[in-house]
Amino acid sequence: MNFRTDLALERQESFADGEIKGVEFSSREETSVKISHINVLDERGEKALGKPKGHYITVEFPSLKGFTENLEFWSEIISNEISHLIPAEGTVLVAGLGNSDITPDALGPECVSQLLATRHIKSEIGIPSYLSELRGVAGVVPGVLGNTGIETAEILKGVVSQIEPCAVIVIDALAARSLERLGNTVQMCDTGVSPGSGVGNRRKRIDADFLGVPVIAVGVPTVVDGLTVALDIMEKGGIRLSGAEKRSVLQSEKGMMVTPKEIDLVVKRAAKLVSLSLNRALQPKMNVQDITALVSSV
Amino acid sequence: MNFRTDLALERQESFADGEIKGVEFSSREETSVKISHINVLDERGEKALGKPKGHYITVEFPSLKGFTENLEFWSEIISNEISHLIPAEGTVLVAGLGNSDITPDALGPECVSQLLATRHIKSEIGIPSYLSELRGVAGVVPGVLGNTGIETAEILKGVVSQIEPCAVIVIDALAARSLERLGNTVQMCDTGVSPGSGVGNRRKRIDADFLGVPVIAVGVPTVVDGLTVALDIMEKGGIRLSGAEKRSVLQSEKGMMVTPKEIDLVVKRAAKLVSLSLNRALQPKMNVQDITALVSSV
Amino acid sequence: MNFRTDLALERQESFADGEIKGVEFSSREETSVKISHINVLDERGEKALGKPKGHYITVEFPSLKGFTENLEFWSEIISNEISHLIPAEGTVLVAGLGNSDITPDALGPECVSQLLATRHIKSEIGIPSYLSELRGVAGVVPGVLGNTGIETAEILKGVVSQIEPCAVIVIDALAARSLERLGNTVQMCDTGVSPGSGVGNRRKRIDADFLGVPVIAVGVPTVVDGLTVALDIMEKGGIRLSGAEKRSVLQSEKGMMVTPKEIDLVVKRAAKLVSLSLNRALQPKMNVQDITALVSSV
Amino acid sequence: MNFRTDLALERQESFADGEIKGVEFSSREETSVKISHINVLDERGEKALGKPKGHYITVEFPSLKGFTENLEFWSEIISNEISHLIPAEGTVLVAGLGNSDITPDALGPECVSQLLATRHIKSEIGIPSYLSELRGVAGVVPGVLGNTGIETAEILKGVVSQIEPCAVIVIDALAARSLERLGNTVQMCDTGVSPGSGVGNRRKRIDADFLGVPVIAVGVPTVVDGLTVALDIMEKGGIRLSGAEKRSVLQSEKGMMVTPKEIDLVVKRAAKLVSLSLNRALQPKMNVQDITALVSSV
Repeated sequence: MNFRTDLALERQESFADGEIKGVEFSSREETSVKISHINVLDERGEKALGKPKGHYITVEFPSLKGFTENLEFWSEIISNEISHLIPAEGTVLVAGLGNSDITPDALGPECVSQLLATRHIKSEIGIPSYLSELRGVAGVVPGVLGNTGIETAEILKGVVSQIEPCAVIVIDALAARSLERLGNTVQMCDTGVSPGSGVGNRRKRIDADFLGVPVIAVGVPTVVDGLTVALDIMEKGGIRLSGAEKRSVLQSEKGMMVTPKEIDLVVKRAAKLVSLSLNRALQPKMNVQDITALVSSV
Repeated sequence: MNFRTDLALERQESFADGEIKGVEFSSREETSVKISHINVLDERGEKALGKPKGHYITVEFPSLKGFTENLEFWSEIISNEISHLIPAEGTVLVAGLGNSDITPDALGPECVSQLLATRHIKSEIGIPSYLSELRGVAGVVPGVLGNTGIETAEILKGVVSQIEPCAVIVIDALAARSLERLGNTVQMCDTGVSPGSGVGNRRKRIDADFLGVPVIAVGVPTVVDGLTVALDIMEKGGIRLSGAEKRSVLQSEKGMMVTPKEIDLVVKRAAKLVSLSLNRALQPKMNVQDITALVSSV
Repeated sequence: MNFRTDLALERQESFADGEIKGVEFSSREETSVKISHINVLDERGEKALGKPKGHYITVEFPSLKGFTENLEFWSEIISNEISHLIPAEGTVLVAGLGNSDITPDALGPECVSQLLATRHIKSEIGIPSYLSELRGVAGVVPGVLGNTGIETAEILKGVVSQIEPCAVIVIDALAARSLERLGNTVQMCDTGVSPGSGVGNRRKRIDADFLGVPVIAVGVPTVVDGLTVALDIMEKGGIRLSGAEKRSVLQSEKGMMVTPKEIDLVVKRAAKLVSLSLNRALQPKMNVQDITALVSSV
Repeated sequence: MNFRTDLALERQESFADGEIKGVEFSSREETSVKISHINVLDERGEKALGKPKGHYITVEFPSLKGFTENLEFWSEIISNEISHLIPAEGTVLVAGLGNSDITPDALGPECVSQLLATRHIKSEIGIPSYLSELRGVAGVVPGVLGNTGIETAEILKGVVSQIEPCAVIVIDALAARSLERLGNTVQMCDTGVSPGSGVGNRRKRIDADFLGVPVIAVGVPTVVDGLTVALDIMEKGGIRLSGAEKRSVLQSEKGMMVTPKEIDLVVKRAAKLVSLSLNRALQPKMNVQDITALVSSV
């Protein structure tokens, strides 16, 4: 494999003929939005895609253009896909991974800041009754090891032990293969996450094994390996490098992660899309207007 | 009591003759900095001051003027006082309480962002050896109930159960009686804290009883009750209200919390002072220059 | 006068019987929103209100509650009032006065960041044709003297000399008499502004005399003099101070400006309301949805 | 030329033999810091380097490592070089170009926020006498055309007409050829600037011709063309593309600008370095400690 990605879909696409042992694949399109389902069935599939056994759903949008007009429609698609991954009832803990001071790594914290947290509402007075009937949702921004001295997985395990949710949703920035994909793709899976993998510092895995409850991961790619960009650009330009040439390039390059100059806007939009999608999936009885009003009033 | 404050010192000062049953008091001055020790000994003291049994240390600076020149000296005084409250060895967890989106409530999160977290350093490579000999320090910003749906106390209990520190230090913004006190006073105590009390929403108490380890609270007043300000200003102007007049005022006013227009600067400086003081107390072998360089390089 | 305010309405209200020589006053109410027109006719009116000759329009909202639901309706009222103050055609320069690093003084810069600037659009390609038919609007954030070394009035005079607008709209934070008024009141006038007056540093006046074109000022109170708060609270509680008592209080107090603890939210909402009102007044052919989509897409 | 850069030095280096007609070049090294002087003498030089006639000084630092320890030394080198470009006396206007909401474009605004503005100090009272003897310095953040509707050049021309400085210093983010250069290189020149060229939107040139006073530009590269990165990485790996291959790649790629994932830190450090260098060059009588204390106290 001569490129780096956190997207199961990009791994799958790298197989020329498409058919991979131990992997089921299907995709469909809705008004220019492409939805792909990848099912890693067994160890053969794990080896081929470099991803743990489980479901990987990828939603691809045509581009950031038309974001505002399409926000409601796009969030409905993601919301529907997430709904199938979450237990029907019970409190859900949403964790926004990443570093809010590093723009391309701030997706998780940004999303949680727009999350409709409801777990505490029952006990407050003067609240409209419909609010106290909402599903219990809690949010947490654990920070990153370099700043906290604590593994993200440890913090989440501690919080889970206290509030005992039925599931944990972790949101994190990812790495992709291609610059065009950044901000335009949302990946959801039921296999958890290794925080920091998207931005170069792989840490203790956060999954159902470790936390004791289902862990759903939602991610949007915001960075690309510089080397991967170079090889991707060559390939698109029709330049085929030999194995020796690739090795030579790999040896001469340190592999700096890059992000588009518009990364602030990319993250802002991705956070808006993912948080709205989550709020809709978690509170299916509320409409988009009420969710938006409540989030912006906080 | 016709005013609101989180400062044990202001409660103590409200007793005309100074002598209070069940309370020990002493104070000293170092180059214009006043250090007061209040020891609440028993239930009589608790009732008189409205504060749980324990030690309350208050450090008062003349004003925000001369902040930069005095930062090193002031942080040394606070650092010394904190040192006596912390166990000599073992990992310490520092929690920055409050809401980073509300300027007068952002003291805790701001402090933790300047904390020297070291608990994770041992396992990293390429680190100078002196760094791996530092005391283990971890930091966490739990957020506020309205945003997370989780009591701050619950999050801390969960984290404590995972990392098992020898003590927890909680940092929080406080309410004072007088506008002049805001930003110029640091209170430390060994009795824990009720988060949000300074800004009007008292929550589940965070103390040794609940967390199972010593809890040291460090706070700086950033808000005042508008009504308290009014009565304070009258008193300073020599206007003595009768009991009936006070009741009349109390009934007509909603008690809005206020803060100075320069609150951004007040919080920025208080966070710099408190975080430097904590870093010095937690890493007594490091000098101020090395601490400052490490903090600003992160 | 024993209180400080930038609101012509609060000056007017301080006259017990209401009738003031040289001042015309009228007010009406629309669905809980109160709209007042004050016309300072001559020098007698200037002396009585402490405000230059001209029109002062004040719109008062019941409270910050219901902000999101009422945003469209409230902005329509303000938009209509502003429309009468602006020339019907020609480029308009909007200046956001104040300091973006000081929360209660950040109203102006925040508003301009949500302004629909259109003056440059003609020359761009790939733009929908309706956009190039919009009224020319330019925005500028001049900063504050302490940071720039330049009087705001000088910067605006320089920009006006270059782009020759038909009018200048300046947005600034104001001081009010009462805490309840903060964030709930918008004042518009055709007499310009003395920047910083609301936050304690009065500077060179920005008006039609100095800039050579009409200057409309739009402001929202975000601060109150601590002393004014105290006297206001006493008065509401039915405590009448004698002249000697007032003088005693005035002498003992430094007059610190204060702001509510929720100032971040107050400014955020006021900026949203004022900028939407301005965008509607300046582009009457556009609807609220298109304006909102364009502003948030930038 | 198959790559894009704003650095005269990278243009110069692209000539294999080094000797270019109409261009003088010299360089020296001080403790791992490389200082290069390029003098574009005439039209032959302008054509060869694609840069207007004038002096270009480039200072290259080994890497961001050791930033805090080297800040004083590095800023001294840059300060000395800038000193030779500025008139010895008279007020200087410093303009921070770029968009403060786009991290890689925020260098200019960030620098001006740390500038010691002094032009207004004379008229203030209670100021130490040495402050009123400082050189007059003014700072302005003009914003970007897309947000303001006004060309940066127009705003600066207006301000210059009001305050009549002896020179203007413009600070802007640049584009470089190589990822390794980002944040580690400072370019100064006496030929002005085309704002936005570094981030893809070339605008009306800001130079002595247009403003009527000398214009010194100071820039730090923060972005690279993705295509340039790809070709640069190939070249370092020893892959030589033919002309046809390069054309094929150029046609298939849109040329997205990229920046490192650590861009927040890169810009923060570059702004600290450039602003300190400017403050030292503009106030040669002040020492680093006093400058730092004054800047951080504002």
